[in-house]
Amino acid sequence: MVYITRKENFNAAHRIFRPDWSDEKNFEVFGKCCNANWHGHNYNLFVTVKGKPNPETGFVVDLLQLGKLIRAEVIEEIDHKNLNVDVYFMKGIIPSTENLAIEIWKILAPKINDLGAALHSIKLFETENNFVEYFGE
Amino acid sequence: MVYITRKENFNAAHRIFRPDWSDEKNFEVFGKCCNANWHGHNYNLFVTVKGKPNPETGFVVDLLQLGKLIRAEVIEEIDHKNLNVDVYFMKGIIPSTENLAIEIWKILAPKINDLGAALHSIKLFETENNFVEYFGE
Amino acid sequence: MVYITRKENFNAAHRIFRPDWSDEKNFEVFGKCCNANWHGHNYNLFVTVKGKPNPETGFVVDLLQLGKLIRAEVIEEIDHKNLNVDVYFMKGIIPSTENLAIEIWKILAPKINDLGAALHSIKLFETENNFVEYFGE
Amino acid sequence: MVYITRKENFNAAHRIFRPDWSDEKNFEVFGKCCNANWHGHNYNLFVTVKGKPNPETGFVVDLLQLGKLIRAEVIEEIDHKNLNVDVYFMKGIIPSTENLAIEIWKILAPKINDLGAALHSIKLFETENNFVEYFGE
Amino acid sequence: MVYITRKENFNAAHRIFRPDWSDEKNFEVFGKCCNANWHGHNYNLFVTVKGKPNPETGFVVDLLQLGKLIRAEVIEEIDHKNLNVDVYFMKGIIPSTENLAIEIWKILAPKINDLGAALHSIKLFETENNFVEYFGE
Amino acid sequence: MVYITRKENFNAAHRIFRPDWSDEKNFEVFGKCCNANWHGHNYNLFVTVKGKPNPETGFVVDLLQLGKLIRAEVIEEIDHKNLNVDVYFMKGIIPSTENLAIEIWKILAPKINDLGAALHSIKLFETENNFVEYFGE
Repeated sequence: MVYITRKENFNAAHRIFRPDWSDEKNFEVFGKCCNANWHGHNYNLFVTVKGKPNPETGFVVDLLQLGKLIRAEVIEEIDHKNLNVDVYFMKGIIPSTENLAIEIWKILAPKINDLGAALHSIKLFETENNFVEYFGE
Repeated sequence: MVYITRKENFNAAHRIFRPDWSDEKNFEVFGKCCNANWHGHNYNLFVTVKGKPNPETGFVVDLLQLGKLIRAEVIEEIDHKNLNVDVYFMKGIIPSTENLAIEIWKILAPKINDLGAALHSIKLFETENNFVEYFGE
Repeated sequence: MVYITRKENFNAAHRIFRPDWSDEKNFEVFGKCCNANWHGHNYNLFVTVKGKPNPETGFVVDLLQLGKLIRAEVIEEIDHKNLNVDVYFMKGIIPSTENLAIEIWKILAPKINDLGAALHSIKLFETENNFVEYFGE
Repeated sequence: MVYITRKENFNAAHRIFRPDWSDEKNFEVFGKCCNANWHGHNYNLFVTVKGKPNPETGFVVDLLQLGKLIRAEVIEEIDHKNLNVDVYFMKGIIPSTENLAIEIWKILAPKINDLGAALHSIKLFETENNFVEYFGE
Repeated sequence: MVYITRKENFNAAHRIFRPDWSDEKNFEVFGKCCNANWHGHNYNLFVTVKGKPNPETGFVVDLLQLGKLIRAEVIEEIDHKNLNVDVYFMKGIIPSTENLAIEIWKILAPKINDLGAALHSIKLFETENNFVEYFGE
Repeated sequence: MVYITRKENFNAAHRIFRPDWSDEKNFEVFGKCCNANWHGHNYNLFVTVKGKPNPETGFVVDLLQLGKLIRAEVIEEIDHKNLNVDVYFMKGIIPSTENLAIEIWKILAPKINDLGAALHSIKLFETENNFVEYFGE
C-alpha cells in the first residue's frame, strides 16, 4: 500500500458565527473570526489517496486525473468564493476548517473510488499555523 | 547602512471591483477577483527599515518596538477584516496588493522615522505566487 | 474524529552531553552537539489534538484557547532559554528533541483533556531537516 | 515509541514510459512525463525511524549516523543521476515516485535495523505539490 | 513605481558540459553536474515587473495576463523538457542558471513592454540553496 | 551583470547584552534576548555574488567553490557555537544579526574577489520573521 498526496490551493472568504446567537455571544465564542464583513484565507488542501501501484504504470492513481478531479469538484466551487454564502456544499454548515475538511471528504471519497483508489485523508491548512486532518470517520 | 526586515501576517477579505462599472465589465477586467460576496487571503507583510546599527546596542532599530508599531498601526486595522469595507485607510481605494502596499507605506514611514530609522520598502505577499514591493516613490 | 494542529515556535540554547562522561567520550558520541558553550535552534512545535467537532461551534477545540495553553505552559518556559539550565521540566534530562517532545506531551496531555479534547501527537522540529513525533506511548 | 525523521535531498532526471508501448500510448497515459529527452526534479526524501530513546543518549538513533547511511546508500546512487539509466536499484522499474519510495525502503530497512532502530516510513516529494509515503507493506 | 512579481514553476533535465572538452576536463570543472545521462531540477521562476498602478484598476499589470504570458512563452517551452536538447532558445548555450535567466529575460522583456509595463528582474531558483537574479544588463 | 546566491545554514547560541550595563538595564533594552544562560537560533545565510557569466562555463562563480569557501571561512567557525564566546571574529562585538552580517561580509568580501567575482550582499535570517541585509557600506 502506497499513499500519494496531491496539493491544491484556494482563496476564500468566510465568517465563523451562528445567526441564532447575539453579536455579543458570537464575539465571546469566536472572537475576531466572526467579523460581520468577513475575512479570508489562502487555504492549502492536501488530498491523500492510498492503493497498490498499478504494475503497468507504477502509479497508485493518475495524478493528472486526481488533480483535475479535485479542481473540478472542489476548487472550482470554493476558490475566490465566500464559504458561507456561495458554496452549495457548505450551506447551513459553520465553515470551520474541521467542517470544511469533512465536506470535502464526502465529495471526493466516492469519486476517488471511481478512479480505482481509496481516499485516505483530507488535510486542510487555514494558515501555516493551523490545520486539520480528517480520515473519514 | 544595514537593512532589517520584520515579517507580520494578517488574514483579510476583499473584492477587486469598481462600483461605477457594470458586473460584466468588472468580470471582464478583474475575473474571479470581483466575486460579489468577497474572497480572501493570508497576507504576509515584510517591512524593511534601513539605518546604521546603534553602536551601543548593535541594532538598526529595536525589533520589538518595530513589531509593536506594525501591529498597532497596520495589523490591528486589517487583520480579520474586509479591506473594502472595514479599513479606514483603504476607503475609496481599490484593494489591489499594489494599493494596499502604498497605503501601508504612508502609515508606517513617518512613524518609523520617529524610531530613528528610515522605511526602505514594503513587500506584501497576497499568495505565495504573487507579491508587490514598494519603495516610497 | 478530526485532528487539528496548532503550530507554535520557540528559540532556545542547549547542549547534548552527559556530565558523567569525559569530554572525549561526549565528543565521540554527540559530536559538535556537545559544544561546551552551547548552541541553539529555532524550534517549531506542532500540537495535534483529536476529537469530534462540537456541533454548536464546528470546532474540535477552541484554537485560541489551545494556543494560549501551549504558550502559557510550554513556550513561556522554554523560549529564549537554555534547555539544560533554565527549564524546570528538563532538569536532569538530556535535551534531545526526543526527550523534549516527551516532556512537552506530559505537560500538555492532561491540560488538553481539561479543554474537552485529547492530545494526539507532539511534533517537534529542531531544524528543517530533523524532527521527532511522539504519540504518548 | 518516538518517531524521528531525517530529510535529505537529491536532484535527478527521469522519464515515465514503457518501452513496450508506442509513443502515442505512452503520451496518452503519461502525458508530458514521458518526454523522450527526460525531465527532472529536486526530490526531498524524509526517512522516519521509530524506537525508544536510548536512556544514555536520549536518542532513538544517532542522526549523524542515520544521515550518513542515507547519503551513502541512497543519495550517492541517485543524486545528479538519471533514474532510468544510471541507478542500479531502479533497473527495469518505472521511476514513478511510488516505485522509487518502495525501492528506497528495501535498501534502508535492513540497514536501519543494524543501527538498532526500525524504519517506519519513506516519504518522497517529487514536487511541492506531489508526494508519496510508504510504510513497508 | 511599484514592483510586482509572479512566480511560475517548471521541471526540467539538463547537463552542464562543453562538447569541446574531454570528459575528464568536464568533470574537473563541472563535477557531478556534467553527468552524461542528465539530471534535473524543479525550477522556480520569479518575474518582477515595475510600473505605476493604473488608477482605474489599481494594477501595475494584469497578473492573469502576465501569468499567461510567462506560461505561453517560457513554461510551455521548458517544462518537462531537456534544456540542452529540447529548448529552441537554449540551443548552443550552456544551461547554467545564469544563462537560462538571461535568455528568459530576452524573451519576456519585449512582451512585457507590450502589456504596458517594464520587466525589472528575472529571479530563478535551481534549488532552494542556489538562485540567480538578472536585471537586463 | 548576473547576481548569484548561495544559501548555507548554521545553528548557534547567543545573548544580546552589554557587560557594562546592569541586569536591569540589559533587560529593559534587550528583553528576553539578554537571558543570562543564552538562547539560540537556526540561522540561514544567503551570500550573493555578482559578475558576468564566464563565457566558457556559463558561471559567474563556481558554486561548489563558493559553497566550500563559505563553509570553511564562516560556517565552520560559528556552527554549533556560542557567538559571544566561541567565535574569534565576534569577540567584543554584540552578536546582533546586524553586526554578525557585517563581520561575515568583512571575511568573505576579499576571498570572493580571489574567486574572480564581487560580493554583493549578505542576507542573514535569525528567524523566519527577522532578517538583515548588508551591502558593504
